[in-house]
Amino acid sequence: MTSTAELLPLAVIGACCSPVTREPISAENAASLAHVLKAVADPARLRLVSMVAAHQDAEACVCDLTEPLGLSQGTVSHHLKILVDAGILTRDRRGTWAYYALVPGALDSIVGLLAGA
Amino acid sequence: MTSTAELLPLAVIGACCSPVTREPISAENAASLAHVLKAVADPARLRLVSMVAAHQDAEACVCDLTEPLGLSQGTVSHHLKILVDAGILTRDRRGTWAYYALVPGALDSIVGLLAGA
Repeated sequence: MTSTAELLPLAVIGACCSPVTREPISAENAASLAHVLKAVADPARLRLVSMVAAHQDAEACVCDLTEPLGLSQGTVSHHLKILVDAGILTRDRRGTWAYYALVPGALDSIVGLLAGA
Repeated sequence: MTSTAELLPLAVIGACCSPVTREPISAENAASLAHVLKAVADPARLRLVSMVAAHQDAEACVCDLTEPLGLSQGTVSHHLKILVDAGILTRDRRGTWAYYALVPGALDSIVGLLAGA
């Protein structure tokens, strides 16, 4: 004769499993957060975000961002475009220069997830 | 005769530049934070971190992590190894199963940087 326990999958009889105490993120949320995380998961882009944030009103002229990074203007523009496309920075051309500003709250959902982890 | 302003670089005369109000992260910090960010900048790995965090004591058996992701055991193991190598999770084999736990504080520096941005 077969006992009930032998017929149940391991997860049901709890041989290995600790209980879940809250809801993990959904597949959809994970996909959109991973997209934003990928945009900042690069040393140059992390420094760009940090440099813009360090400027008054969290806005910096592109002319202030290129030299400290030690990268070509083309490479810096490429990284800035990825940050703008991900919704982390905005770009505003005024006269000769382009100005980049942090989008308020753009990183809040990532911070919330990782702080809660 | 040349005026003083004409001899100074643009950054010095402040034609385009807002002042820096705090210190941006260093190149070294950016490199190490980007390494950890890359590890979580993936939908499956973000869900794994969230799932482990959602379990009691922030520890989960690998047997609880594979099925909800809808990925093969080999793929899940690959993602878990990246998270362990990045110092985000620890792995502890007990009997038949491997248990994964969040490393306390592993994501603090990322949260601090992004929350301050």
